[in-house]
Amino acid sequence: MKRIAVDAMGGDYAPKAIVEGVNRAIQDFSDIEIQLYGDEAKIREHLTASERVTIVHTNEKINSDDEPAKAIRRKKDASMVLAARAVKDGEAHAMMSAGNTGALLAAGLFVVGRIKGVDRPGLMSTLPTRDGKGFDMLDLGANAENTPAHLLQYAILGSFYAKNVRGIAKPHVGLLNNGTEATKGDSLHKEAYDLLTQEASIHFVGNVEARDLMNGVADVVVTDGFTGNAVLKAIEGTAINLMGSLKSAIKSGGFKAKIGALFLKDSLYQLKDTMDYSSAGGAVLFGLKAPVVKSHGSSDERAVYYTIKQIRTMLETDVVNQLVETFTKEENHD
Amino acid sequence: MKRIAVDAMGGDYAPKAIVEGVNRAIQDFSDIEIQLYGDEAKIREHLTASERVTIVHTNEKINSDDEPAKAIRRKKDASMVLAARAVKDGEAHAMMSAGNTGALLAAGLFVVGRIKGVDRPGLMSTLPTRDGKGFDMLDLGANAENTPAHLLQYAILGSFYAKNVRGIAKPHVGLLNNGTEATKGDSLHKEAYDLLTQEASIHFVGNVEARDLMNGVADVVVTDGFTGNAVLKAIEGTAINLMGSLKSAIKSGGFKAKIGALFLKDSLYQLKDTMDYSSAGGAVLFGLKAPVVKSHGSSDERAVYYTIKQIRTMLETDVVNQLVETFTKEENHD
Repeated sequence: MKRIAVDAMGGDYAPKAIVEGVNRAIQDFSDIEIQLYGDEAKIREHLTASERVTIVHTNEKINSDDEPAKAIRRKKDASMVLAARAVKDGEAHAMMSAGNTGALLAAGLFVVGRIKGVDRPGLMSTLPTRDGKGFDMLDLGANAENTPAHLLQYAILGSFYAKNVRGIAKPHVGLLNNGTEATKGDSLHKEAYDLLTQEASIHFVGNVEARDLMNGVADVVVTDGFTGNAVLKAIEGTAINLMGSLKSAIKSGGFKAKIGALFLKDSLYQLKDTMDYSSAGGAVLFGLKAPVVKSHGSSDERAVYYTIKQIRTMLETDVVNQLVETFTKEENHD
Repeated sequence: MKRIAVDAMGGDYAPKAIVEGVNRAIQDFSDIEIQLYGDEAKIREHLTASERVTIVHTNEKINSDDEPAKAIRRKKDASMVLAARAVKDGEAHAMMSAGNTGALLAAGLFVVGRIKGVDRPGLMSTLPTRDGKGFDMLDLGANAENTPAHLLQYAILGSFYAKNVRGIAKPHVGLLNNGTEATKGDSLHKEAYDLLTQEASIHFVGNVEARDLMNGVADVVVTDGFTGNAVLKAIEGTAINLMGSLKSAIKSGGFKAKIGALFLKDSLYQLKDTMDYSSAGGAVLFGLKAPVVKSHGSSDERAVYYTIKQIRTMLETDVVNQLVETFTKEENHD
């Protein structure tokens, strides 16, 4: 039985969306057990699942505008902190939250803890490509500064995930850089390029540019947290604005445009599906001793369901324990 | 009379698109004179303008895959290099090219030369916002590494451009960072934030995120060249892929979708117009002794025309000489 600790109080639509996602997951997956952390009365309002679910009541929760490190230290009984502690104490195998990202990073690092040998866990998401396959990118902003050695570790972490969780036999790893030539980039990216070239356990395909990410230029894209965060937000902002502009253009186009949109409805839904990657799950804080996964703040029932499904696959494929072995071996070699 | 040197041989559709853009500009603006550098016979095939245009013939040109610095050194008679030399020698007041970006950066720096006091000229473009106003962002990749002092200079340069060329009385300047709080970012961005806060000549509005750029969160967005390049390419890649996906969705949607697209045609064109910012001109290598402007490699006649129009405005408002004065004053204060 896979035991997953769920912060029921984090996210814009908590606890409703969280609990509804849990209901569906319990129904679909008979090998999981969910521990819900949060306000018991409010959780019960939405809970329909009756087996393999327990509620651990607490009144405290971390808000989206709380200062992360401080919140983790002071709100010791917050739903997110209790869920993290359950993982640390072995009562749960993994945890998820749709709440304050910074606080979850802090809880992951300080409560759950790093894998020995992984210097700086990175935030990783599966992002959409036009062919529907998607790619994994990390670090998306767990760190504001990274070294070349961190980027090498991200390549190893990302390859493991792509292989085990996404079933890609030989994941192509690209380094996000400001040009495709080997000599491109600042000193951080030049040194990372050299390290990646020398690493035998990954399949490094060289530098990739942000322009080509959605074309599926690599299965795993490695970047420092500052650039990764900016690129992720640029992709999100552009997609949201373009879809919004399309809507406005249809609205202001009068009757003719509305007729057109009606005829185009199926095609527009198909486009929305291509861009919607919530079925790939949430963002993994990767490099910790257990899966700690952040579901988007605006997660609905569907997104929560897919995040639980993703955690289940991570537990089933035992990806974290394999990482522990790999990095322990490397440590011993040093 | 404003004299503009134009590299007729750079870009995917050269010399045709370049010469056609020149034809239209000569017709519309009676106060400009164009010097076309390149293959005279090929230029004449497309040239209809008969006044205020001269051709300086050369057989040599820089290719898009030439190594920039080497090409500038070795191909001394290349159309791009001759155009840059004309600016240096005072025969032209400004130059444009749609050719090899790296080579144009090198020609700008080594032939035209920096304004005294500007440490690292930055590449700046006007990018689209949903309200149609647009924003200027720099550095978009002239430099792979920047210091906090460079970022402060970009804020001053960008503000000058927004005021003089775009007519914004009090341009809001934002620092691209991985969060809006004052304490966000790596050491480069934290230090830049402090410098920007202290600078009295600009209107600094704090940190901005890549997600909000298209919402018009600032008129001038300052960033290091590595991040700026990645964000620009992420925006481009997402827009191109989304528009492509929309097309595919319509195509594969059969008869019904095609009817819908027909009715929606005007609205879709409106969307395309919102995203198309070529009417704002090309990318300025800003901080040089004269306007050096890069038109997109895929520039058509329209984009070339608007780049010439942009250069004309830069000359008319005398923005570069004002910069020279400002930075000379600052140098003397030091």
